[in-house]
Amino acid sequence: MAKVSDKYLCVDPWKIIEEGFHPERSEVSESLFSLANEHQGVRGFFDEGYSGTSLTGVYLNGIFEERFTEGMAYKGISNRLAFMVNTVNWLYTRIEVDGETLDLARSKFSALRRELDFRSGELRREFIWETKSGKKLKLVFQRLLSMETKELACQQIRITPLNFSGKVTLTLGLDFSIPHRMFDQNLWNCVRKDDSAILCVSRNIGHRLFAGMKVYAEAKQTPLEAEKFIGARLEVDAVEGHGSVVGKSVVLHTDRDKDQALDLAWTRGMTLLQTYTIKYDEVLESNRLYWSDFWAKSDITIDGDADTQQGIRFCIFQMQQTYRGVIEGANIGAKGLSGEAYNGNAFWDTETYCLPFYLFSNPAAAKALIDYRYKTLPQAVARAKDLDCEGACFPIATIDGTESCTLWQHASLQFQPTTAVAYGIWHYVNVTGDTAFLRAEGSELLVQICRFLASRGQWSANGRFGYYAVMGPDEFQMMVNNNAYTNYMAKRTFEFVLKVLSLLSQREPHRGASQRAEGEGEIVSDIELKKWQHMAEKMFIPYDAETKLYEQHEGFFNLPHIDVNAIPVEDFPLYHHWSYDRIYRNDMIKQPDVLMFLFLYNGSFSMDEKRANYDYYEPRCIHESSLSPSVHSILAAELGRHQEAFDFFRFATRIDLDNYNRNTHEGIHTTSIAAAWMNIVYGFGGMRSDGDVLSFSPSIPEQWNGYSFQVTYHGSLIRVEVSQSKAVFRVLGGEPVCVKVCGKLMEVNREGISVEI
Amino acid sequence: MAKVSDKYLCVDPWKIIEEGFHPERSEVSESLFSLANEHQGVRGFFDEGYSGTSLTGVYLNGIFEERFTEGMAYKGISNRLAFMVNTVNWLYTRIEVDGETLDLARSKFSALRRELDFRSGELRREFIWETKSGKKLKLVFQRLLSMETKELACQQIRITPLNFSGKVTLTLGLDFSIPHRMFDQNLWNCVRKDDSAILCVSRNIGHRLFAGMKVYAEAKQTPLEAEKFIGARLEVDAVEGHGSVVGKSVVLHTDRDKDQALDLAWTRGMTLLQTYTIKYDEVLESNRLYWSDFWAKSDITIDGDADTQQGIRFCIFQMQQTYRGVIEGANIGAKGLSGEAYNGNAFWDTETYCLPFYLFSNPAAAKALIDYRYKTLPQAVARAKDLDCEGACFPIATIDGTESCTLWQHASLQFQPTTAVAYGIWHYVNVTGDTAFLRAEGSELLVQICRFLASRGQWSANGRFGYYAVMGPDEFQMMVNNNAYTNYMAKRTFEFVLKVLSLLSQREPHRGASQRAEGEGEIVSDIELKKWQHMAEKMFIPYDAETKLYEQHEGFFNLPHIDVNAIPVEDFPLYHHWSYDRIYRNDMIKQPDVLMFLFLYNGSFSMDEKRANYDYYEPRCIHESSLSPSVHSILAAELGRHQEAFDFFRFATRIDLDNYNRNTHEGIHTTSIAAAWMNIVYGFGGMRSDGDVLSFSPSIPEQWNGYSFQVTYHGSLIRVEVSQSKAVFRVLGGEPVCVKVCGKLMEVNREGISVEI
Repeated sequence: MAKVSDKYLCVDPWKIIEEGFHPERSEVSESLFSLANEHQGVRGFFDEGYSGTSLTGVYLNGIFEERFTEGMAYKGISNRLAFMVNTVNWLYTRIEVDGETLDLARSKFSALRRELDFRSGELRREFIWETKSGKKLKLVFQRLLSMETKELACQQIRITPLNFSGKVTLTLGLDFSIPHRMFDQNLWNCVRKDDSAILCVSRNIGHRLFAGMKVYAEAKQTPLEAEKFIGARLEVDAVEGHGSVVGKSVVLHTDRDKDQALDLAWTRGMTLLQTYTIKYDEVLESNRLYWSDFWAKSDITIDGDADTQQGIRFCIFQMQQTYRGVIEGANIGAKGLSGEAYNGNAFWDTETYCLPFYLFSNPAAAKALIDYRYKTLPQAVARAKDLDCEGACFPIATIDGTESCTLWQHASLQFQPTTAVAYGIWHYVNVTGDTAFLRAEGSELLVQICRFLASRGQWSANGRFGYYAVMGPDEFQMMVNNNAYTNYMAKRTFEFVLKVLSLLSQREPHRGASQRAEGEGEIVSDIELKKWQHMAEKMFIPYDAETKLYEQHEGFFNLPHIDVNAIPVEDFPLYHHWSYDRIYRNDMIKQPDVLMFLFLYNGSFSMDEKRANYDYYEPRCIHESSLSPSVHSILAAELGRHQEAFDFFRFATRIDLDNYNRNTHEGIHTTSIAAAWMNIVYGFGGMRSDGDVLSFSPSIPEQWNGYSFQVTYHGSLIRVEVSQSKAVFRVLGGEPVCVKVCGKLMEVNREGISVEI
Repeated sequence: MAKVSDKYLCVDPWKIIEEGFHPERSEVSESLFSLANEHQGVRGFFDEGYSGTSLTGVYLNGIFEERFTEGMAYKGISNRLAFMVNTVNWLYTRIEVDGETLDLARSKFSALRRELDFRSGELRREFIWETKSGKKLKLVFQRLLSMETKELACQQIRITPLNFSGKVTLTLGLDFSIPHRMFDQNLWNCVRKDDSAILCVSRNIGHRLFAGMKVYAEAKQTPLEAEKFIGARLEVDAVEGHGSVVGKSVVLHTDRDKDQALDLAWTRGMTLLQTYTIKYDEVLESNRLYWSDFWAKSDITIDGDADTQQGIRFCIFQMQQTYRGVIEGANIGAKGLSGEAYNGNAFWDTETYCLPFYLFSNPAAAKALIDYRYKTLPQAVARAKDLDCEGACFPIATIDGTESCTLWQHASLQFQPTTAVAYGIWHYVNVTGDTAFLRAEGSELLVQICRFLASRGQWSANGRFGYYAVMGPDEFQMMVNNNAYTNYMAKRTFEFVLKVLSLLSQREPHRGASQRAEGEGEIVSDIELKKWQHMAEKMFIPYDAETKLYEQHEGFFNLPHIDVNAIPVEDFPLYHHWSYDRIYRNDMIKQPDVLMFLFLYNGSFSMDEKRANYDYYEPRCIHESSLSPSVHSILAAELGRHQEAFDFFRFATRIDLDNYNRNTHEGIHTTSIAAAWMNIVYGFGGMRSDGDVLSFSPSIPEQWNGYSFQVTYHGSLIRVEVSQSKAVFRVLGGEPVCVKVCGKLMEVNREGISVEI
């Protein structure tokens, strides 16, 4: 891997800290210092405005716009891009002294420090401003998003004159006029406003967004307004050595319902504004309690490696900020709520990379992710029809359930989102035992998925079933036949669904499920079941018994070979430097494909198979996807390749903090930081959740003294502490549970058990 | 083939005739009745305006605009579309009687007849108009493009009152305000005008186009003008029973030079206008002489089948209208100058489908087509660089030599244009023996082509050379490895160039060629020659010796099979009715691919091979390309499948007259009608031009009494007359020539020889 870190933050176990200002990394910092509470997210831009490079981004989960692209007008090609739209700068602030407006791109300042505390979710920034007139002021900016009341956001500014007493003029406001960066366009129309609130409607979709504020300050307030802006001008009489505090509480309200009456949106917003605008310190305190509770359940400690300790906590903190199952109909965008890259769309990463974190810390949130797919089943059915198929085809990229990927080769040829939904259901039920879900929504989803897989697959001239003209997870092999991943996942899906339907039929006829599946009462006939059975049996999985290698797709082994280590570093990322077609015609891969299904169905493969395939595919992989390193690390750990496992982990866990991929300015890699969590738990912890019982085979990098993690399983909180010599398993809360440790079934209780490693 | 004719024209050996008006086919007729003289083309729209469905299209060879499409912004992806732009309606006419304006969509009329005469290139239309006031007038419209003076166009209108004498008001003009249909946008700015002329500049490229007119009428003329329009209003005192004639001569002048001084463009245009505006009848007479001379050399007769006789003459007439090697830098657009589909771009059809017609009737025009590629070599070198390759890559679609296909999968994956240029050179030299060209421009082109082929090809893991991620001629297999056509053509190209360079080196060092090739004196080194030799030797041509089948690409034989005859007729064209990806994943093919190289290098394959591959691939082909039937017909004739050969030919030769593909309204299928000529000469005539000497093996469909065709070969005009029992070969002009007939070498002279068949 030709990935090099770009470290500039201070290391701290519970915070990220920037000392001094790094204007060349201003947007990287904005991403890293972003806050979110699932409902809303705000980048770490400067409250007071900044004329340097900056993306003033404020995003709300599920608030999106759409755009129809020009391009190929063929059937089944999606030309509608849905994108999480930039909304309102609720932190809008301008500060003037002696006619000079503070702007860190132009003003003289010193001693800048900003920090984000994972134990409170507070972002704090301070510096000393020296005006042209020679006045010095210490400024402290604080901001918070309430974890308790999702609509609530708070800003506080403390101004301390150091060498004078006198007037400081501030403008605080709510600014709906900011552009959506990706299209350099503002997408809001203001429909109502008064001194304290503004209601806007998004231009194409018509999403309603209410923003209200309560400004607090010991100063005269003069209301201000502009087309898409409301604000207040404050004259603060600042006293030398004394901190004057101003701030505002803000409510951002939406019902995510474009048909909601505007009056109702206004009234509800105003009610929230009156109810919830409490003081900054109260919100800070409530957040501390929230995060303290969270860390007690979900912390990972690493002893002896401050770097990765900070990295892994940053990952967990960001995951929890982005998604925790509170918002109806939310999913997890590839950049969370921290930027516009990938347009806020969710991918198959949700089921394959993010789900485990929630399955083992917050099962309700995990279920909500699967419910999201159930709620968007009608869109998936429509999409399958667009593709001349039956059943349900889930989108490669989406916000509202509709396919939003306008690159047809991805949208029309990648089916891992669909098999991932089935995998997610299987995984969820396997871990939680929630058969009620399986009997109802689960089986309906599964039947529709099988119908899609049956209709999209084809029989080859030589009598094998498989998928033709597909792209697997590895996007460097664009259009291939019999991709092993696609075929294997489809085979397992058929087998799982056949088992589910046969189990259900012992208790209740599986007609129930299939009736729901079609809405109109069409049942899954015996003919259909037999067809699926036959397809599963005859599914072609390219495999060489002698070498134990799965062939990534038919013909992969005969592709021209390229030595990925010989590619000059300046050629990366390849999509920017290589002719597009050149990427697609050799045995180089972007991310795990065969190794991906070896990871997902880990227990179904022998160590020899894992070793052979790891040794073959890892050297061909350039990890251009941020999802790649963790999966490799987990398999390396299982194979006893400890140094490799550790190297991949370091990269995965600090991908954003050290900006390994040089694109953190676009937002954080939310779904790949979910993988960093798996990297500890599945990788070093050796946890496996694809068997009948949860199992662990811990190992530890030699660089560490010890590490610990916790998982919630069958209602019990299990703590795992691993040192260089032993692993201790203990139930912290709930009933004793049976798990397998290093191959042996054991009961873990509050006293704990210790195993030598 | 599920192709059904839509016949509505009268059958005539020398004309196309429409009796009565078919408004539902108005744009089909506009295409069929289009005129061209290579410099300019005009659709058969109504002079007097028509408020029904119509495309008022006037196009000039080489006058294009450009448009940059949104879309994928990856390296090597061409986002610039060049399109032959709609220009000036020089036929603009309005006719008023008693305040009623003639409009065949609204007016009462009868006895409409229009005809296009292949012996003069005149389009004549007549009908009787009955005004609301009860007046009846006979109107005759005639138009012509001069074949002698390419800038000259003539319009004549004869008005005969049948039941009154009185005023008829006409407006005649030059109208630059017509929209380009494809983008519904006018693309001209007027820079100068007076009463008789108007000079416009195209909006983006800046092409200059001068249009001047001389109106003749025995009536008072009042000048008119509007923003992009000049005209004259005429008051004609029409007399019952007496035909009043009005008309105009028009000059359309361009130097195809966007940098030409505007004054110069104006002056040159005015000079032409003064020189060339002669009377209609003189131009008609000159055109008759031109066409009489042409038909004497190039006619094909079919005795006993009026349908195909009309069809083949229409094809030959349209070919000659579209291209005859007069315009510097012109090529042959897929729709000629008759419509906007394919944007006036030229494809690989030029060398593979059109070149033979010119090679055997007008070798100078054939050479001009190859010169076109030489002149655009710099663009092809730049394109290769875009694709991270060396040498020259010729565009899949182009007007000015730059790649103009914005569908990346075609532009980046299809290399038949590049191998077709080499094939064209080889074919040209083989037929003409023009080694001077080969030594100079030819070898320079060939060296650059080989460099591209060497750098784009790759060595597989098992030591074979070939092309990965390509699309062959069959566009239904989008992205495959080792397409047999691509590999075979590349192999033959290497072999040809190695031979050429070795022959040249005996007379003069081939450095000469290679120095020109690089401009800077880089020579073709021995290392490079050896590399090409090695690639040619190790080129992987998928072939099964037992079945004698070439596999269209690696893995084709294992693709899912689809019975193309079971596809419902209403599913065609598939691109409109099938999900885009669905087309690309079975063994259905759109057009010949293996059969294409079996046709191009016909003499290199045994009859057994041709039979086996024809029997395998023809049933899998849906002929969705109009280029398909002729090649199948030619091979069917060779294999003695006479009925099949005849059926394919009927389709090929009347594709537009009977609107088989239901898209003639977009323009005529210029390059596929070139294939209809090959269908007679190579198919039934059994001519082969890929050997050392020209050969013939005539056969005759049982439906015909006889047929004849003529070819110019080594300066001699050979006439071939075939009846049900014999074939007669005779030299009509020039020296006796040696040809092979039915395998036997013979000298053909003016007395002729007769062979039983």
